[in-house]
Amino acid sequence: MDDIEIDAVATPELDDPVLIEGLPGVGHVGKLAAEHLLEEFDGELVRRVYATEFPPQVSVDGDGVAGLTCAEFHAIETDGADLLVLTGDHQAGSNAGHYRLTTTFLDIAEEFGAARAYALGGVPTGELVEEYTVLGAVSNADLLDGLEDAGVEFRPDEPAGGIVGVSGLVLGLGDRRGFDAACLMGETSGYLVDPKSARTVLETLEDLLDFVVDYESLEERAEEMEEVVGKIREMQDGPAVPDDDLRYIG
Amino acid sequence: MDDIEIDAVATPELDDPVLIEGLPGVGHVGKLAAEHLLEEFDGELVRRVYATEFPPQVSVDGDGVAGLTCAEFHAIETDGADLLVLTGDHQAGSNAGHYRLTTTFLDIAEEFGAARAYALGGVPTGELVEEYTVLGAVSNADLLDGLEDAGVEFRPDEPAGGIVGVSGLVLGLGDRRGFDAACLMGETSGYLVDPKSARTVLETLEDLLDFVVDYESLEERAEEMEEVVGKIREMQDGPAVPDDDLRYIG
Amino acid sequence: MDDIEIDAVATPELDDPVLIEGLPGVGHVGKLAAEHLLEEFDGELVRRVYATEFPPQVSVDGDGVAGLTCAEFHAIETDGADLLVLTGDHQAGSNAGHYRLTTTFLDIAEEFGAARAYALGGVPTGELVEEYTVLGAVSNADLLDGLEDAGVEFRPDEPAGGIVGVSGLVLGLGDRRGFDAACLMGETSGYLVDPKSARTVLETLEDLLDFVVDYESLEERAEEMEEVVGKIREMQDGPAVPDDDLRYIG
Amino acid sequence: MDDIEIDAVATPELDDPVLIEGLPGVGHVGKLAAEHLLEEFDGELVRRVYATEFPPQVSVDGDGVAGLTCAEFHAIETDGADLLVLTGDHQAGSNAGHYRLTTTFLDIAEEFGAARAYALGGVPTGELVEEYTVLGAVSNADLLDGLEDAGVEFRPDEPAGGIVGVSGLVLGLGDRRGFDAACLMGETSGYLVDPKSARTVLETLEDLLDFVVDYESLEERAEEMEEVVGKIREMQDGPAVPDDDLRYIG
Repeated sequence: MDDIEIDAVATPELDDPVLIEGLPGVGHVGKLAAEHLLEEFDGELVRRVYATEFPPQVSVDGDGVAGLTCAEFHAIETDGADLLVLTGDHQAGSNAGHYRLTTTFLDIAEEFGAARAYALGGVPTGELVEEYTVLGAVSNADLLDGLEDAGVEFRPDEPAGGIVGVSGLVLGLGDRRGFDAACLMGETSGYLVDPKSARTVLETLEDLLDFVVDYESLEERAEEMEEVVGKIREMQDGPAVPDDDLRYIG
Repeated sequence: MDDIEIDAVATPELDDPVLIEGLPGVGHVGKLAAEHLLEEFDGELVRRVYATEFPPQVSVDGDGVAGLTCAEFHAIETDGADLLVLTGDHQAGSNAGHYRLTTTFLDIAEEFGAARAYALGGVPTGELVEEYTVLGAVSNADLLDGLEDAGVEFRPDEPAGGIVGVSGLVLGLGDRRGFDAACLMGETSGYLVDPKSARTVLETLEDLLDFVVDYESLEERAEEMEEVVGKIREMQDGPAVPDDDLRYIG
Repeated sequence: MDDIEIDAVATPELDDPVLIEGLPGVGHVGKLAAEHLLEEFDGELVRRVYATEFPPQVSVDGDGVAGLTCAEFHAIETDGADLLVLTGDHQAGSNAGHYRLTTTFLDIAEEFGAARAYALGGVPTGELVEEYTVLGAVSNADLLDGLEDAGVEFRPDEPAGGIVGVSGLVLGLGDRRGFDAACLMGETSGYLVDPKSARTVLETLEDLLDFVVDYESLEERAEEMEEVVGKIREMQDGPAVPDDDLRYIG
Repeated sequence: MDDIEIDAVATPELDDPVLIEGLPGVGHVGKLAAEHLLEEFDGELVRRVYATEFPPQVSVDGDGVAGLTCAEFHAIETDGADLLVLTGDHQAGSNAGHYRLTTTFLDIAEEFGAARAYALGGVPTGELVEEYTVLGAVSNADLLDGLEDAGVEFRPDEPAGGIVGVSGLVLGLGDRRGFDAACLMGETSGYLVDPKSARTVLETLEDLLDFVVDYESLEERAEEMEEVVGKIREMQDGPAVPDDDLRYIG
């Protein structure tokens, strides 16, 4: 196998598509958001990317059939913009691997004519989030106004540790090849899978790209998580654990 | 030394051979099973594979003679199918190494005309196993019926963490080059070397490939392990350690 | 992206420039010193170096604009020597990466005509430093006299663990291609960011390269740190923690 | 810098020289032994090997002059065999690095006409050693008799964990290119630098290669270590620590 192998499953004509990246990360916010798009819009699988930088692993599906670890691109035509949605179960296993994979991802996006990209993710707050804000970062300053109009918040030098992984490189490497790229980071505790944060990120994206999506299935997952959070709060309000901090949940 | 070096020790004509992979893993089930085949059938060594991805290490034999870490292929002619058995003491040391080695292993199998592969291994249950089941995963759905007829069990989305290492890639990379590949995973506690689980896997393989093998020597090892397990049970049944979980054995 | 990409931002004519390396390290002494030079002299950005060996990361500036991890060279013309100042937020992520990056850094320095280099850094003492000494190491013995005249101290076989990272390789690889290279290491506790140590290193450099720099801004940072140190001393002088050692601060 | 760079310092004519490898390892036995040879015989430096697999590091000598991490070959002419002694402060930093470096080391040895090699090292016993034995392993069975005549002991399947690092590969890779290679492993506790074990290994080598070496300086180091060991024994003989095991020293 080559270091990276791309299966071209389909090559539909897309109209100025926008790359939407949602690989695993903080609170699985980006992954939940991207997968919800696939679920609601019934996207068409267009590319599979295999890489020796991914874990040497297969997943097993509901029938017992194994699938080799890969990242996938789906094309979605919405009433607003066409989307090219990148999802998968893994990031790369090394520094250089992240650079190589993101380069490949941007190559594929370019091949479909994309010149804009949104990297979706979460930003950890360390405590339960009451009001969900979407924090932003952009590849160039021209993008700031449009995002602020859509309610995205920009805080100087935040996130303090920068943006790590494929999301960061979609901005950093994207900028170097002319992409208009932004990172949309939903606030999230950082301790739990967070469908509510994913919804907030998607609502921002709806606003930016002028499409409409239904949230029923995501809402169900959010309610399940609410129950978990409710139990945690009860534990916290009890006499033994009066701390408002979730850090011990891990 | 090149990154991978293959010593062609012998190149017998084999009749539609089946690749049997048994490298180290959970409970050493796959390794025990593959080595038992070599022992019983007196297979012929056909290839040695050296790789800079293996640990930089020699083992020392009973005479004091050192042998460089490698993987080996033995050819076995049974009354049923011809087998090409892959064994060794190590997996690769990196993600990319696993991909490169498995690619080489499949190249060699193809060279001998193999188009089918069984990856043997164990699946951890976390507790002592009373009734040994063989869990399966396949590279394509056409293989399901045959395996189910042989008593292999398929459980949706299991193993939950996927199948990692060379076994997983024999399915994942094998499928990409047209192999019919299946993973046979014997249930095992995950805490002990498990010859009984290896036997259950081999019995499934006998059924699938229509050969017969004697289990006396494997039975002896199983009895030794039974004694160990018996002592553990005694400890567990005593007043001090009433827990039914083996996790503390490590 | 290639493994290393160099953006040639500007290529001013420099007069026998001296490479000044100040990447992150012990007490951030080298980084503080190099950044202070940039601040005071208003240097011109001449090269950016991107590398897949750096963390896959962007930083976010005060406006929310992302910048891909890189190392930067600034040219500074002082009344004394011309300087080529190398700064950045990261070292490489692997052994080989350090060698490759330092080779690139020396290539760039040579391109500008540099044949001399100073690697700035800190050397940990394990306790609060009262009198700041600059410890030296050189790429060849001819450089010893000049540095000793400037007050640099040489202690046999120190630092005991050698000099690790880009600073070490500026000497080691620099020497192999004809650079006169020296490492100037300010003593520092090793537990705190140390602007005072950075100042001592810079004063030595002023002496060696015949330029004058103002220290007001660095002094402010030093005073902030003094307050921190003052509080630590109070804690140490209290009855509970009579130890003169800072190791517990981490 | 290339991944490996070799400085050819001198190329004396050697008569069927024997490669003696003494890189760092258990008890520093091999390194002490090889360095003692250099000290006593005043060997000629013939090759320096630099590698990006080594730590990115310089050491600093008694004058303050930095030296880039490397491995060195010295030629020694004894009354018996000519020796090519390989020493250094580091092993490689990765699996593949060990293979590449050892391949280079064997290339150099071949260039000087060597066809025999002794890898010197220690084998840990886990307790203080009273009678020092030299354990052996060979690249081919023809070497067993000669080594047994020299008092080398061979124990089936020992060391149990195999021989790791450059020493192991001198046997494993050496054998693949026709070297007659043996590993001489002095028993040592594994917790302390052990000059006595190094002496036992060298005495075996004297016997095998028919040269004579003085041990005064090594004896001094051994006496220093004896004092350390004496203090440990006192501690052990006291009422609080009656255990004969050194494991807690680390």
